[in-house]
Amino acid sequence: MPLFKRSVAEFIGTFWLVLGGCGSAVLAAGFPEVGIGLLGVSLAFGLTVLTMVYAIGHISGCHLNPAVSVGLAVGGRFSWGDLPLYVVAQVLGAIVAAYLLYFIASGQEGFTLTANALAVNGYGELSPGGYSMMAGFVTEVVMTMMFLLIILGATDKRASGVAAGIAIGLALTLIHLISIPVTNTSVNPARSTGPAIALMTGGYGQALGQLWMFWVAPLIGAALAGLIYNLFASADEPSEIEKLGGEVA
Amino acid sequence: MPLFKRSVAEFIGTFWLVLGGCGSAVLAAGFPEVGIGLLGVSLAFGLTVLTMVYAIGHISGCHLNPAVSVGLAVGGRFSWGDLPLYVVAQVLGAIVAAYLLYFIASGQEGFTLTANALAVNGYGELSPGGYSMMAGFVTEVVMTMMFLLIILGATDKRASGVAAGIAIGLALTLIHLISIPVTNTSVNPARSTGPAIALMTGGYGQALGQLWMFWVAPLIGAALAGLIYNLFASADEPSEIEKLGGEVA
Amino acid sequence: MPLFKRSVAEFIGTFWLVLGGCGSAVLAAGFPEVGIGLLGVSLAFGLTVLTMVYAIGHISGCHLNPAVSVGLAVGGRFSWGDLPLYVVAQVLGAIVAAYLLYFIASGQEGFTLTANALAVNGYGELSPGGYSMMAGFVTEVVMTMMFLLIILGATDKRASGVAAGIAIGLALTLIHLISIPVTNTSVNPARSTGPAIALMTGGYGQALGQLWMFWVAPLIGAALAGLIYNLFASADEPSEIEKLGGEVA
Amino acid sequence: MPLFKRSVAEFIGTFWLVLGGCGSAVLAAGFPEVGIGLLGVSLAFGLTVLTMVYAIGHISGCHLNPAVSVGLAVGGRFSWGDLPLYVVAQVLGAIVAAYLLYFIASGQEGFTLTANALAVNGYGELSPGGYSMMAGFVTEVVMTMMFLLIILGATDKRASGVAAGIAIGLALTLIHLISIPVTNTSVNPARSTGPAIALMTGGYGQALGQLWMFWVAPLIGAALAGLIYNLFASADEPSEIEKLGGEVA
Repeated sequence: MPLFKRSVAEFIGTFWLVLGGCGSAVLAAGFPEVGIGLLGVSLAFGLTVLTMVYAIGHISGCHLNPAVSVGLAVGGRFSWGDLPLYVVAQVLGAIVAAYLLYFIASGQEGFTLTANALAVNGYGELSPGGYSMMAGFVTEVVMTMMFLLIILGATDKRASGVAAGIAIGLALTLIHLISIPVTNTSVNPARSTGPAIALMTGGYGQALGQLWMFWVAPLIGAALAGLIYNLFASADEPSEIEKLGGEVA
Repeated sequence: MPLFKRSVAEFIGTFWLVLGGCGSAVLAAGFPEVGIGLLGVSLAFGLTVLTMVYAIGHISGCHLNPAVSVGLAVGGRFSWGDLPLYVVAQVLGAIVAAYLLYFIASGQEGFTLTANALAVNGYGELSPGGYSMMAGFVTEVVMTMMFLLIILGATDKRASGVAAGIAIGLALTLIHLISIPVTNTSVNPARSTGPAIALMTGGYGQALGQLWMFWVAPLIGAALAGLIYNLFASADEPSEIEKLGGEVA
Repeated sequence: MPLFKRSVAEFIGTFWLVLGGCGSAVLAAGFPEVGIGLLGVSLAFGLTVLTMVYAIGHISGCHLNPAVSVGLAVGGRFSWGDLPLYVVAQVLGAIVAAYLLYFIASGQEGFTLTANALAVNGYGELSPGGYSMMAGFVTEVVMTMMFLLIILGATDKRASGVAAGIAIGLALTLIHLISIPVTNTSVNPARSTGPAIALMTGGYGQALGQLWMFWVAPLIGAALAGLIYNLFASADEPSEIEKLGGEVA
Repeated sequence: MPLFKRSVAEFIGTFWLVLGGCGSAVLAAGFPEVGIGLLGVSLAFGLTVLTMVYAIGHISGCHLNPAVSVGLAVGGRFSWGDLPLYVVAQVLGAIVAAYLLYFIASGQEGFTLTANALAVNGYGELSPGGYSMMAGFVTEVVMTMMFLLIILGATDKRASGVAAGIAIGLALTLIHLISIPVTNTSVNPARSTGPAIALMTGGYGQALGQLWMFWVAPLIGAALAGLIYNLFASADEPSEIEKLGGEVA
């Protein structure tokens, strides 16, 4: 599959991640009396990834996230040469989704924009629970690191890959169940960039000013995971599959 | 399997989709203090499809939705000749389910019908969150398009199909998590038609007057998905499976 | 595997269904402020079945329910001769679970028994939402019929059975999402019998007086499903699997 | 795979179980208006295990729990010689996670520690619902026993293992749906030890004083399961897989 078509798949997939995940938060989380709450938003984020794994996994590998692409490259599972176009496609998909969400949300009577609208990520004043920058930074590093460890393990040649998409999608659900109150949960620089840019054009630049953290922390966490996985999970002896004729990843 | 028996399966499956999805909304969503909320309704809609994929997928393909049948036909996965009877069966199943739900709901002391009862779809005054017709139209087009892209991808010969039913069912859950507040979520003309007709016979014709949109928008979205998928996901080179002797879909 | 050991598995599995499903309802559904609600209870019931399918499915087939055993027998999938011991084991498991739940629940300070305690099934005054006997009866017949159709389809030789346990477990979740408000959801005579008997020994006999319905309605629904499935889903032509050398179920 | 690397995997996995499970409880369960509640916490605990099964299952078997290691050893599925290092790694991972969670939680303005903070396990005054020590003890024994029976069954050579990780992860979700109100749910001595130790260094030693029960009861339940499973589920005749050339576990 040529790089351009794979990048289109990444564009569509990341579009879906932001439209679905942030969309559920903006439109349905606080719906009076019967809203889906943080549990529903966590599920929505995970299901965007789970559904896309099955929709485009066989096309692009379904990264939908610059941190995932970087982590896989560090772990030797993804080509550094393909990285730039993947990241560009992911960020563009996230931005288009944020603007579409903005359009749909503004179709509700009485809609007004605020500094923490569109499910933007943030710390301090923009943290849903008022958590400090340091707590947010550590949380994003650790959560992204664990996310990548799960991805690296679930797609390891030695693992049975048939349910990997379920495990990876639900890993993102889990990460949101833990950390929405801290940073609104990023672990994904593209996901943070879309809403921050859409908000800025609406007159609220605070989130854009905090955007650096949601690039730096997830990328550190992802790179750490690539290093750790290769260290502790390297195959010292041939695995069952390798004994049957497979080759080392 | 002859067309008639496959249509019976579509009738039963769409009956289940409307009875289960709309039923959970009508009977359990707002149950005092411990109701299942929009999250539970979203899960219920998805589980009707997930369970039917495993129950009748091997019989009829488990479309349960005229937009799915059309999208698959545009994508070259379903025969145009079988389309009419499938759609008729789906709409009939939805209508029967709506009347059965009406009967069960009216068995509660103090039951009264209203214009937005039976989990009917709508915009403007009938939108759960008061969203405009334009926001509703765009939402239905995009959501149905993404739903079909997931279906087309998950059932692609190049994808590992074993968990396709889980991915497709949970895709419908995700779509409801996002868009119930906007239009009460259709992405399925049959699902919209059942409650609208049952409501009309109960004296409330407003939903029937808006029904056109829940045929037009999902069908546009589904056709778009069929075109897009063939465009960006077409196989330029033989896939792994094809190399092993499979054939192009 | 000899009948006795398979019956022990059915005893353990039905014990788990009642302890887990009814237990979540009694202990956690209404927990102040953060209770799991009807959504959590629905999930719990489904997960008891899902987990037992993987735990004992290879031993006894994991029926856990006299209606399932009868429906499978009508559909030609289970031996009528094994039915009596299976049903006895299921009912005994349910009764033991109900008493254990009674014991645990009474360990909370201020515990008192009521006529609708222990998540008992009922209609009219014992219906959680005050639904009539007729609405309850129809609901139980239809829900059990759909449950059995899903089970018969998901375990059909022509279907891919690998995720059948997930589909069947989540089918029970779905059925609870719809119908807890109507009858507290039975679709399982054993599940209804356990709490009704435990309540009677605590001085509340009303549920036992309504128990007939939760044997009659589920058994009718299950038998209907067995007949319908053989009718509309019978194989007129060899399936893909049969063409490859499989045999008709 | 050498024992040391497998132990590192157990350290990381148990770290994730406590950080994710207890973390969701501490940070997100009671979040104002849209908190995830006990349902979200139950899901989080289950998903830590589900995700780790796919991440490290092929490395260490993914026990994450001294009771699981003991139960598997009693059932003849795990080497007694490997047990000590596994347990040490599990307890260390849990302790590190508890301190990290303490650090993140204290990054919220207005944070104060209490005797039942950090999602610690307990009975009597430390039981979320005020349940007695006896109710808590019985609950922990039964829940751990059922957890191990599910694990032993789902990983039995005669069962189809492909979805075992889903079944086992969701079993832990189910157990939490039932028993959080009673003991805050342990079924895992390591999970209980981490928060109890972190709390003690913060000046609250009550949980540490109750810690004995969350070692004794789960270990009894796990050992019981190992014995029972070998008794009732032993293979009297060769299974389908064995007929095809497999060997008895």
